Amino acid sequence: MQKNSPGKLISQLFRYGRIYLARQLEPFDLGKGQFWLLFTLYQKEGITQEDLSQSLTLDKSTIARSVTRLEKAGYIYRKLSERDQRAYQIFLTEKAKKIGPQIHSILLKWNEVLSTGMSKEEIAAAHRLLIKLADNAANYLDK
Amino acid sequence: MQKNSPGKLISQLFRYGRIYLARQLEPFDLGKGQFWLLFTLYQKEGITQEDLSQSLTLDKSTIARSVTRLEKAGYIYRKLSERDQRAYQIFLTEKAKKIGPQIHSILLKWNEVLSTGMSKEEIAAAHRLLIKLADNAANYLDK
Repeated sequence: MQKNSPGKLISQLFRYGRIYLARQLEPFDLGKGQFWLLFTLYQKEGITQEDLSQSLTLDKSTIARSVTRLEKAGYIYRKLSERDQRAYQIFLTEKAKKIGPQIHSILLKWNEVLSTGMSKEEIAAAHRLLIKLADNAANYLDK
Repeated sequence: MQKNSPGKLISQLFRYGRIYLARQLEPFDLGKGQFWLLFTLYQKEGITQEDLSQSLTLDKSTIARSVTRLEKAGYIYRKLSERDQRAYQIFLTEKAKKIGPQIHSILLKWNEVLSTGMSKEEIAAAHRLLIKLADNAANYLDK
């Protein structure tokens, strides 16, 4: 068994990302779960918790916890969907919109960190590769 | 901001891996945290909790919880270190040794899943790339 197997390296990369995020998010009173949720909402404001669960590949109870926390922290609010009265749509408050650029730059910076010393071609190849690995994983799990 | 940024793809890959692991580990009464700890012990039996924490880049309280669970499930036992009377070394029980091959094959299988449809050269390139990303992350966080 290879010591640095892809599976293990991915776990390690994920943990490094988590350490980075925790440090960066301190001033915003945001946890990592809330970060990804907020990040998705900047791109798709008004989506439902159900959609968030699919988009982030996280189970509904985890999403529900993050939504509650973000609501308490004043970053989001919920509104009954006009199309489906059993679903809540989630919207960003002014407070959340204000920190949007900073939140985006946290992720941009991490992507820069990861690609330190790599050429444009290498970065593109890395990107293709990660998509390939994710597709392989998704295809297998869907079977 | 790219929708599929490296940071996001890595998180997604990690979550896919977690889903896979959870399914595979069901028959063994093992959680994912315990899996990695056990996996490390197959390679370095007798290491201390401190070493495990460093090796897995997880904080000490997380390691302590996994150690306790593995102990209760009868997979490991602790022994006071002869070199350092404040540290515990961790050893595998017969029960753990028996399932060693199956545990290893869970990870091997996942690595196969991830590299579906890739040539040997592509797999080697992927491996180099993941190491490069992990090194970049580690270097940045150590600063």
